[in-house]
Amino acid sequence: MFLGKVIGTVWSTRKDENLVGAKFLIVRHLDLEMKEKDNFVVAVDSVGAGEGEVVLVATGSSSRQTTFTQNKPVDAVIMAIVDKLDVPVEELLKKNKK
Amino acid sequence: MFLGKVIGTVWSTRKDENLVGAKFLIVRHLDLEMKEKDNFVVAVDSVGAGEGEVVLVATGSSSRQTTFTQNKPVDAVIMAIVDKLDVPVEELLKKNKK
Amino acid sequence: MFLGKVIGTVWSTRKDENLVGAKFLIVRHLDLEMKEKDNFVVAVDSVGAGEGEVVLVATGSSSRQTTFTQNKPVDAVIMAIVDKLDVPVEELLKKNKK
Amino acid sequence: MFLGKVIGTVWSTRKDENLVGAKFLIVRHLDLEMKEKDNFVVAVDSVGAGEGEVVLVATGSSSRQTTFTQNKPVDAVIMAIVDKLDVPVEELLKKNKK
Amino acid sequence: MFLGKVIGTVWSTRKDENLVGAKFLIVRHLDLEMKEKDNFVVAVDSVGAGEGEVVLVATGSSSRQTTFTQNKPVDAVIMAIVDKLDVPVEELLKKNKK
Repeated sequence: MFLGKVIGTVWSTRKDENLVGAKFLIVRHLDLEMKEKDNFVVAVDSVGAGEGEVVLVATGSSSRQTTFTQNKPVDAVIMAIVDKLDVPVEELLKKNKK
Repeated sequence: MFLGKVIGTVWSTRKDENLVGAKFLIVRHLDLEMKEKDNFVVAVDSVGAGEGEVVLVATGSSSRQTTFTQNKPVDAVIMAIVDKLDVPVEELLKKNKK
Repeated sequence: MFLGKVIGTVWSTRKDENLVGAKFLIVRHLDLEMKEKDNFVVAVDSVGAGEGEVVLVATGSSSRQTTFTQNKPVDAVIMAIVDKLDVPVEELLKKNKK
Repeated sequence: MFLGKVIGTVWSTRKDENLVGAKFLIVRHLDLEMKEKDNFVVAVDSVGAGEGEVVLVATGSSSRQTTFTQNKPVDAVIMAIVDKLDVPVEELLKKNKK
Repeated sequence: MFLGKVIGTVWSTRKDENLVGAKFLIVRHLDLEMKEKDNFVVAVDSVGAGEGEVVLVATGSSSRQTTFTQNKPVDAVIMAIVDKLDVPVEELLKKNKK
């Protein structure tokens, strides 16, 4: 899974019939210091995530393993909302030195 | 899913027999300000998308979860046509600062 | 799918028993102006593609959805030979300006 | 699989109901000299890996092939803890020359 | 599939119970002139490949389509040992000019 932040929504009326009711959220990748990266994906929400929340996103066939996404043409799903990260300070410092 | 824009069509006569009737569209990746990136994929259309339209593309096994693409050797499908994005202005500004 | 050009062949005697008879072709990625990129994959041919031909390649589990590749340890298949691309000139120009 | 090092944990209360009890570990990619790279994934642990340990991570649908992860929306799993690498010194030197 | 060279072995005692007996080989990506690239994967061997040999690696769910890897948490498999490549000289020269 990758760590991301919900930053917006995609609205679509004309879509695959199985996707009626799907909530398409725009999720930007985050680094370990919670800084947003440039790249993003559009993921279906399965846990009630809202804008600004930090989430985990599962991609590929694994994104179809939730009750809502099963058998749907969906390749990214928000399957967890993150409470906090536990990363030792020295790990974060290592990254800054690079 | 990734956000893209339909910019052209690929024509093919000799192809897997299950792909007769498939419409292969060229889809360029878009950033959040709808600027086209260099990279593109060839995706099968399942929602009647036309040139110039902004779409969502699902890749991998998920692209076979539409009525038309099921069991076909296809790894990218257009499964939604985008009406609009809701992204707060401050998010777009963040990106520009990078 | 990605757009590619067949540029060579890989010969292998010792391989998975299910792959006897498989034709492994080297396919370089192409950009929209048919210029070859550096990256390439080795794909199994399912449509009789030959050297120099422009093709579409499906990757991942989708590459096992042809009669020949089913249930085989293969992650890329040539499933179409391209006749032509329809891309408006202004799209190609956009790219050159970048 | 990729070679990685466990550097932290992600805590999540609100998540897919099938993920109750899952341990989400942050795994940084390693190069062959065991130097940490910038990129990381969040993987579910299936072998009792702890912080600081060097591990192998399987991604995609393959990550659902352990007893715990089966049918769960998970796209990365730690499936082995690494004891040691056997890489000839000349291979490591090659890399340094680049 | 990608073209690679076996350069070492990963040893692991604590691993998923289905992986007992698996041989984890370190495979570096190769370009068309057989030069080693920096990136590598850890792949399970299914064809008796040894150190120094040039091989094909299948990734993702396709890597579980060999007798040994079936239903195992493995996302890369060596499924062929390469005898030779047939690539016209002008193709190799193209690459060098870039």
